[in-house]
Amino acid sequence: MIYLDHAATTKPLPIVLKTYQDVAKQYFANPASPHHVGEVADDLISQAKTIFTDYFHIPQDGIIFTSGGTESNHLILDLVLHQFNGEPIHIITSTVEHASLYDKCQLLEQQGRLSVTYITPAENGQITKQQLTKAVQPDTKLVTIQLINSETGISQDSEMIGDFCKDHQLLFHTDAVQAFGKQKLSSIFNYVDALSLSAHKIHGLKGVGALLLKQPKEWRAPFQSKTQAGFRQGTIDAGLIASFAVCVNDYITNKNKRLNTLSRLRHYFISQLKHEQLPIEVINSDEEGSHIIGCLSTASYGDYFQQALNRKQIYVSTRSACHSNTIGAIRSLIPLYPTEQHQHYFRISIGYFTTKSEIDATIFALKNSLETRTL
Amino acid sequence: MIYLDHAATTKPLPIVLKTYQDVAKQYFANPASPHHVGEVADDLISQAKTIFTDYFHIPQDGIIFTSGGTESNHLILDLVLHQFNGEPIHIITSTVEHASLYDKCQLLEQQGRLSVTYITPAENGQITKQQLTKAVQPDTKLVTIQLINSETGISQDSEMIGDFCKDHQLLFHTDAVQAFGKQKLSSIFNYVDALSLSAHKIHGLKGVGALLLKQPKEWRAPFQSKTQAGFRQGTIDAGLIASFAVCVNDYITNKNKRLNTLSRLRHYFISQLKHEQLPIEVINSDEEGSHIIGCLSTASYGDYFQQALNRKQIYVSTRSACHSNTIGAIRSLIPLYPTEQHQHYFRISIGYFTTKSEIDATIFALKNSLETRTL
Repeated sequence: MIYLDHAATTKPLPIVLKTYQDVAKQYFANPASPHHVGEVADDLISQAKTIFTDYFHIPQDGIIFTSGGTESNHLILDLVLHQFNGEPIHIITSTVEHASLYDKCQLLEQQGRLSVTYITPAENGQITKQQLTKAVQPDTKLVTIQLINSETGISQDSEMIGDFCKDHQLLFHTDAVQAFGKQKLSSIFNYVDALSLSAHKIHGLKGVGALLLKQPKEWRAPFQSKTQAGFRQGTIDAGLIASFAVCVNDYITNKNKRLNTLSRLRHYFISQLKHEQLPIEVINSDEEGSHIIGCLSTASYGDYFQQALNRKQIYVSTRSACHSNTIGAIRSLIPLYPTEQHQHYFRISIGYFTTKSEIDATIFALKNSLETRTL
Repeated sequence: MIYLDHAATTKPLPIVLKTYQDVAKQYFANPASPHHVGEVADDLISQAKTIFTDYFHIPQDGIIFTSGGTESNHLILDLVLHQFNGEPIHIITSTVEHASLYDKCQLLEQQGRLSVTYITPAENGQITKQQLTKAVQPDTKLVTIQLINSETGISQDSEMIGDFCKDHQLLFHTDAVQAFGKQKLSSIFNYVDALSLSAHKIHGLKGVGALLLKQPKEWRAPFQSKTQAGFRQGTIDAGLIASFAVCVNDYITNKNKRLNTLSRLRHYFISQLKHEQLPIEVINSDEEGSHIIGCLSTASYGDYFQQALNRKQIYVSTRSACHSNTIGAIRSLIPLYPTEQHQHYFRISIGYFTTKSEIDATIFALKNSLETRTL
């Protein structure tokens, strides 16, 4: 098979699976238990944390392990609600956020717990300083804007947004689920206050992620429990967390090579589309979102291409796996294309281990599907 | 080592680890992806669901997979808030609930989102019909009371509570995290509307659990996403879920033998305490919570026994691993003992694979620790 749906999830690395297996078998105790085997599990978690603290330059207690990117995005909103409980809360986000952030904002709005301004990016997909300036209100507490969009690959200017937030004394959270492992983020905490991560997007396991806080001491913990300093309840698992640290470490060690692979293959794919004169347009995104190749073709529907490739055991998506159940329009595409064109969208997302010959086979299959297409 | 902290967590079964490994390696795709490998992962999840639907007699869409018991307990409260959004909401619970339920109730109360009556059980640890009758209010929507307490092993009369809820048209949720695998629950949905489960308490993996709903169609889903019918966002993992189904199936297949083992070893432990005339009292709990042996001894502190056993590589706890960070009083013990006695508490929790000789070794170590005790 040729797996080109890396933005949906990735195959766990052998070392990730081995680490998980070893820990789950040998160090299964509850890290909150007071005995020796509990302490060993807790030590493994502390060790895992050093991978994150060294790379991101944040304190140990700034790492809140969660069940994944979705929970991290939900949690930052819950933490802001708790932090400013009793005050009116306004937040600024965008119309192109992942469903976990967007739907939760909508839910909290419906519940009357906060008010939200959703910025629709400009025609190039970018959120501008002018838009932020217009959106800010006296009650604004948080700006939450993703780094890389999961459907277009377009990345936002976190430095500009971070500076804006500093100037206006606003908290800045970013959903880095698609960006981490695809963009150098070691200096990101110069700009942001909080960051969501997911392990399974970078060859780790599903079921684990993190919300990172730059200044955990400044936040009020919602829970009385001592687990994760009251920021998140629930048994934490040394196996999932150690395996998360392993895949993060693996990425950090091989960073340059991997980012080059993604960029090189993206350019190769685009050049081959041109060379074969295939009527498929690729959404512009810079180097930083290069693993996500958003495609549109007026020659047929996105579903047609996805299914045609599927028959050749080439696996791509028509939209984010976590999308809302709305038919027709794709939120991320609204700034870029008229709604009626959205059904022509499909997404190829490459990975560190994608090869040139897999791209060749995909181009060949696309060419073939265009020759036999129906509309 | 002698592991006697099964109420905190259990060692994953070899077949659980193997299932997880196989699925994570071969069927890693996102179950929400539209292609063949996504569909295969989704099929695995549907298959896993049949283990739950067959045992509990609930519909497939009544199974909401979560990251564990804590999230399941949080989720039922969030679902009730969403269901009755705009109305005043009162819920009834008890003072002896797990921290995940109790702390979240306290948080929601602080936020002014609902009001709560916390029933303190009677002196035998039981919640009575009289107490429920006294607690019910015109705005009461939900009664949430655990089946088995994680520190005392005392089980509540779910049939009586269920009948009470039916008579008063209240929803009844129960935290069955400690009860499932220790008590026959195949008829539980005759009495309850919703149930929380955790895999890692019954030799499954950490990071997965479920909230089961008897009548999912009656509930309003909070999210627009199609994942888990809008009840819970986030990538769901075929590996964790398949391994959860495997450990549930393993329990169901060996149910009678396993429940007998727990009961037999509990009685053996108590008889040996008496035989050796050790000044250790065991909290009364019936057959159904027999894996939790709550011990108190005025001869020394709980910490002393835990540490003395720890030195002999016998692992027990002083309290629930997920307790609140309060010093001194243990909520679960308040109905049973004056606060000043709580520091004398420690917990032995046995498992399906605990042996008679491990109990003998524990009795011997306790006897030894009493001979050299300090207070």
